[in-house]
Amino acid sequence: MRIVVPAGGIGGARFLRGLKAVLEAGADPAGEEPAITVIGNTGDDITLFGLRICPDLDTVMYTLGGGINEEQGWGRADESFTLKEELAAYGMQPTWFGLGDRDAATHIVRAQMMAAGYPLSAVTEALCDRWRPGVRLLPMTDDRVETHVVVDDGDGGRRAIHFQEWWIRHRAALPAREIIGVGADRSSPAPGVLEAIAEADVVLLPPSNPVVSIGSVLGVPGIREALERSTVVGVSPIIGDAPVRGMADACLKAIGVETGAQAVAEHYGPRLLDGWLVDKADEGAAVEGVEVRSMPLYMSDPESTAAIARAALDLAMELKGRTR
Amino acid sequence: MRIVVPAGGIGGARFLRGLKAVLEAGADPAGEEPAITVIGNTGDDITLFGLRICPDLDTVMYTLGGGINEEQGWGRADESFTLKEELAAYGMQPTWFGLGDRDAATHIVRAQMMAAGYPLSAVTEALCDRWRPGVRLLPMTDDRVETHVVVDDGDGGRRAIHFQEWWIRHRAALPAREIIGVGADRSSPAPGVLEAIAEADVVLLPPSNPVVSIGSVLGVPGIREALERSTVVGVSPIIGDAPVRGMADACLKAIGVETGAQAVAEHYGPRLLDGWLVDKADEGAAVEGVEVRSMPLYMSDPESTAAIARAALDLAMELKGRTR
Repeated sequence: MRIVVPAGGIGGARFLRGLKAVLEAGADPAGEEPAITVIGNTGDDITLFGLRICPDLDTVMYTLGGGINEEQGWGRADESFTLKEELAAYGMQPTWFGLGDRDAATHIVRAQMMAAGYPLSAVTEALCDRWRPGVRLLPMTDDRVETHVVVDDGDGGRRAIHFQEWWIRHRAALPAREIIGVGADRSSPAPGVLEAIAEADVVLLPPSNPVVSIGSVLGVPGIREALERSTVVGVSPIIGDAPVRGMADACLKAIGVETGAQAVAEHYGPRLLDGWLVDKADEGAAVEGVEVRSMPLYMSDPESTAAIARAALDLAMELKGRTR
Repeated sequence: MRIVVPAGGIGGARFLRGLKAVLEAGADPAGEEPAITVIGNTGDDITLFGLRICPDLDTVMYTLGGGINEEQGWGRADESFTLKEELAAYGMQPTWFGLGDRDAATHIVRAQMMAAGYPLSAVTEALCDRWRPGVRLLPMTDDRVETHVVVDDGDGGRRAIHFQEWWIRHRAALPAREIIGVGADRSSPAPGVLEAIAEADVVLLPPSNPVVSIGSVLGVPGIREALERSTVVGVSPIIGDAPVRGMADACLKAIGVETGAQAVAEHYGPRLLDGWLVDKADEGAAVEGVEVRSMPLYMSDPESTAAIARAALDLAMELKGRTR
């Protein structure tokens, strides 16, 4: 069983933890290769203080590797912020980024390896040597792609700011007029990404942000086309008219998509999606060409998360059987 | 009164604190310009983890700016080592360097400014904006000069290791066959260095390491020549047959100089030195062409340190008067 999971940060990481639990429960003890390949979003990546920060890759790595701060869902457990305070004391900008002392080591290792010429995919593999997340974690691309958000500049014009600034500093409260994947059009999938998709039995889309997480992955030329040739089942990140977590509604608004389980499935479209899991609250959702099923979608604990992953996997296998 | 002080780390920083106290006690309240220009040794500098580390500049800056760890004499007060532990958990080498979380911010700011094209002198000025050491702190050069130590490789051959590796990891216990200032011959004094020496009333050499601290400064072409045109009084870093602190004896041995107050003065030579302060234990020391005076030279507390600085300054002024 080979499963590919394009993923953003917290939602993707928690879904993956559930999926791993499902696979381990039914594991073939002789299985050598990791069965799950994660295609991590790197559109959130940012260079701050000369360090290269990949929030989504790190959230997946820390969550699956046992280093995550469980309460907040991102960053390291037992974290301290001495370095951040000292950088602020030097007047270094920005001060809004939550750079922890433990987390900073990851970015220092990454920046140093990248400065030495290693691509992000090789760096990610090296970092995972420590964390052993139990999945193969690939960045969507080794090229630099960064999501920028166009906002009003207050003078009647507009300006683009980095996604992180919009998300963290402004808490997505500035209306986003446009969301741009800078560099996306010139990027190509990281080594192994297209191969993993081609070899996958099924592809599962976790309830990650459909615009700035899954959307970024789909924005790397070649990835969407490869996924369209696969059996893909997604889990709705929207329940009723609100995101399960995070601020996906602000992102959907920017691209003119309604905040709703059906609208997101329509946005992904039937060429990409074969199946779609929605919450019981959205039972009526229907998209032509997409098999929609409903179940409780809150990932409130490991058990409910595993049940969602199980349902997505079962639906995918069912749909795959049909198309054969 | 304009004073130039070439300086290394701990010994230089403590001497400077004493000198500042002396000047402040007799200060002209209208004086605007900082009266002391420090020419900091940068031969100890090293790039680790992609960060640029300047131990001697930082020791001077932290000591005079109130941020030093008083007990150990280097590094920041109230320091933690989370980042260091995390880097080690990634298998990053070296693990022998004491990179503190607070201290790391200094190196991150420096590395980032240098990557943006600022010379070390401009970076040092920016860092001092925070610390306000009350002196003008100049690196000896903006060029990269690093002290390497030639040691036996255990196979009958020799190899050169960075001074920091020799000093910290091996605690100067590996016999040093040679000490090399890599890049020194192609370096030039940082902006302001030669001007400060030319405009100085006197130059004081603190009891810094005569080989790898003062010796490095003297190794930048043009600095020794400029100092030879000035009135220079030095404070012996050796009392009896041992360094006041540190492991200067291991360095002196490498260059074939005896560990003694007189031998070090002879090594500096009468072209450079006009006066030389030795400890009471070395009263008999005599070097032709150098005025030798003796007094208690242990910088055991702020008062004794200020007394040494006062004596060095008085001797320098006396000698300067004579040559006029």
